[in-house]
Amino acid sequence: MKPYAELSKEELQELKTALEAQFEEEKAKGLSLDMSRGKPSADQLDLSMGMMDVLGSDSQLVCSEGVDCRNYGVLDGIAEAKQLLSDMMEVPKENIVIFGNSSLNIMFDTVARSMTHGVMGSTPWARLDAVKFLCPVPGYDRHFTITEYFGIEMIPVPMTTEGPDMDMVEDLVQADPAIKGIWCVPKYSNPQGITYSDETVRRFARLKPAAEDFRIYWDNAYGIHHLYEDKQDTLLEILEECKQAGNPDLVYKFSSTSKISFPGSGIAAVASSDGNLADIRRQMQCQTIGHDKLNQLRHARFFKDIHGMTAHMKKHADILRPKFDAVLETLEKELGGLGIGSWIAPRGGYFISFDSLDGCAKAIVSKAKEAGLIMTGAGATFPYGKDPCDKNIRIAPSYPTAGELKAAAQVFVLSVKLASVEKLLAEKA
Amino acid sequence: MKPYAELSKEELQELKTALEAQFEEEKAKGLSLDMSRGKPSADQLDLSMGMMDVLGSDSQLVCSEGVDCRNYGVLDGIAEAKQLLSDMMEVPKENIVIFGNSSLNIMFDTVARSMTHGVMGSTPWARLDAVKFLCPVPGYDRHFTITEYFGIEMIPVPMTTEGPDMDMVEDLVQADPAIKGIWCVPKYSNPQGITYSDETVRRFARLKPAAEDFRIYWDNAYGIHHLYEDKQDTLLEILEECKQAGNPDLVYKFSSTSKISFPGSGIAAVASSDGNLADIRRQMQCQTIGHDKLNQLRHARFFKDIHGMTAHMKKHADILRPKFDAVLETLEKELGGLGIGSWIAPRGGYFISFDSLDGCAKAIVSKAKEAGLIMTGAGATFPYGKDPCDKNIRIAPSYPTAGELKAAAQVFVLSVKLASVEKLLAEKA
Repeated sequence: MKPYAELSKEELQELKTALEAQFEEEKAKGLSLDMSRGKPSADQLDLSMGMMDVLGSDSQLVCSEGVDCRNYGVLDGIAEAKQLLSDMMEVPKENIVIFGNSSLNIMFDTVARSMTHGVMGSTPWARLDAVKFLCPVPGYDRHFTITEYFGIEMIPVPMTTEGPDMDMVEDLVQADPAIKGIWCVPKYSNPQGITYSDETVRRFARLKPAAEDFRIYWDNAYGIHHLYEDKQDTLLEILEECKQAGNPDLVYKFSSTSKISFPGSGIAAVASSDGNLADIRRQMQCQTIGHDKLNQLRHARFFKDIHGMTAHMKKHADILRPKFDAVLETLEKELGGLGIGSWIAPRGGYFISFDSLDGCAKAIVSKAKEAGLIMTGAGATFPYGKDPCDKNIRIAPSYPTAGELKAAAQVFVLSVKLASVEKLLAEKA
Repeated sequence: MKPYAELSKEELQELKTALEAQFEEEKAKGLSLDMSRGKPSADQLDLSMGMMDVLGSDSQLVCSEGVDCRNYGVLDGIAEAKQLLSDMMEVPKENIVIFGNSSLNIMFDTVARSMTHGVMGSTPWARLDAVKFLCPVPGYDRHFTITEYFGIEMIPVPMTTEGPDMDMVEDLVQADPAIKGIWCVPKYSNPQGITYSDETVRRFARLKPAAEDFRIYWDNAYGIHHLYEDKQDTLLEILEECKQAGNPDLVYKFSSTSKISFPGSGIAAVASSDGNLADIRRQMQCQTIGHDKLNQLRHARFFKDIHGMTAHMKKHADILRPKFDAVLETLEKELGGLGIGSWIAPRGGYFISFDSLDGCAKAIVSKAKEAGLIMTGAGATFPYGKDPCDKNIRIAPSYPTAGELKAAAQVFVLSVKLASVEKLLAEKA
């Protein structure tokens, strides 16, 4: 078929009639599908069921340092959990602190602490007239929600295939001392699945921010979440790069096992320099007596070591890969060459990012909903939920079953076609 | 023996020599004892070992609302955990929100949120010149640590046998709009084991604070932590009292299972009015995708209901009671009638509070340490660690074994006698 833009008004009109008939058929099926959130499927959760047995009433519940994990004590994590997560995060175990079940919570607390106590001795942000964050777009909605909650002004920075536009990042952070941070998902980014290039990571490490309390919020959520064995992205380790560049305090690196073991019942950690960790520990000492050491022990005993975790991730990939492939194949087959959308085939992570014609994303999501398919809200991938071009849609293929996914992808491409035709017709009116 | 105050200088001198000889004997034993923190003993932790088996790889991990507890979802707690904790906290389940493993963390977050976002629309405290909290003394050191961390000025209010001095509380909160909160452990208080009288609770509920954003921080940490079956304190339910008094938003009520199941691996909750819970949920929505639902399910299935929990608490009491009795008997036998110390025999909780002669607490703790016994630091029960009379010492009898406890109590009373004699001699010098 020809690209839609080359169709005449009459051809578009005819196409619209045909698509509407198809759409009514889809609606009549009464589907109830969800591609909105990056939730693992039940099959994936089953992979970790052994974790429910690894600690029992006959288990020795003492960690390697000799502490009874059932009792109070050990503020920043037991040694075996630190070892596991430091290997996973590629940082020395001296540089990590284990928290509770959510890295998002650590990020929230990090911003909250900066608001009330500043960063390594700087003025608390709550006392400043303006605080700004750079937000690579499209990006992760929950990051933007945190900064919005604290009244922090968000400045969008476009993503490229190498990561955020570093010319823009460098210019902005050098020029404006009110810019205190940047949200990054550096590997298999949410939603595009882009991994920052070596040059991008090095430019981050060499940043010269006007604000002494500027920090990179490096949310490495998908560090080992590959889809393929033969095609894997690699990411330079940012802490080491920062250290080498003479900027050791520039970054907080976050990660968790939420999409490795059980979402919500995993363990999360932050890695950073000694200086930043001192700030973090000072807060933790007031905030808690300690996080859940039994769950830390459960993870350490279940995975044993990073090799156990890597083997486990291959099983996740075996479940996820066909789902991504199914969506990508449908996109290619149904939309390829029509000029009404573009996407990147990611090598890992949880999402496929779809860009429609300008001004069509909301209409597509709305049509999909009408036919029983819930997508992530259009605009969610931008600060304040406002996509200036109204074109980006995040597709999350992990949760539905293979059968559901096939149906969902069909509804999606049909919604794209219909919204695109309507837009092109409106332009010709 | 006569009260020490009635002894002549010569008698005191003679006593001192005898006590010093005893003290050297104790030191020579090379003891290593700890009565410093309210930690459950290994015996107590063993009571909950069944919890390690209640969820296994063959378990159904779906909660009563039909949600797979392994996955994301359910922000404020699964229904069965809400039911259990609402029964434990004596509040409707609509009025509670379940958090992670630590009620201290909820309190910290509550103060942090008030700093950055105010309370139900009030000015964020970080923008005010002065923020003050009332601190009943002696009290819980970790409460004071939170307020100190946020630069909140702490005003001590003396405890009576009925609870805080309510004349003083009423006068202060009515007069000073900078007073935004009061820390309370209303049942089996830390460290005195005092339960607030009905009249005290009613006066709290009827407070007319100058500050609209004044809240009572009601840390009901020991609500069901009785030591005896036949002698139990009861506490009026504060949320209901506040509602009846036309002050529904006046209180946050905190609790957890830390000293019921496993410290650090329990579940914690806050109960409050709809207005306060809206504030809390708004923060939570930005802070986390949800807390550990598997651990919530584990607790609900292990205890089954409040009756199961009450039965479980009797087993804790059976272990704790002889320990409290041993310390109280030693205090009575060794110090009774000497006029060098006073204490209250608590009916529940985790502590015995000891008041020495003025100016002796630091010396007693220091002597005990010299003989191998770690006590809570003198002054810890007061804001900024400063006990103006230097007389209060918190005794935590739960962690040591019965044998250790006997030895520890002996070291303690000997340290009290010696420090008291030294003080009385110095006064006569």
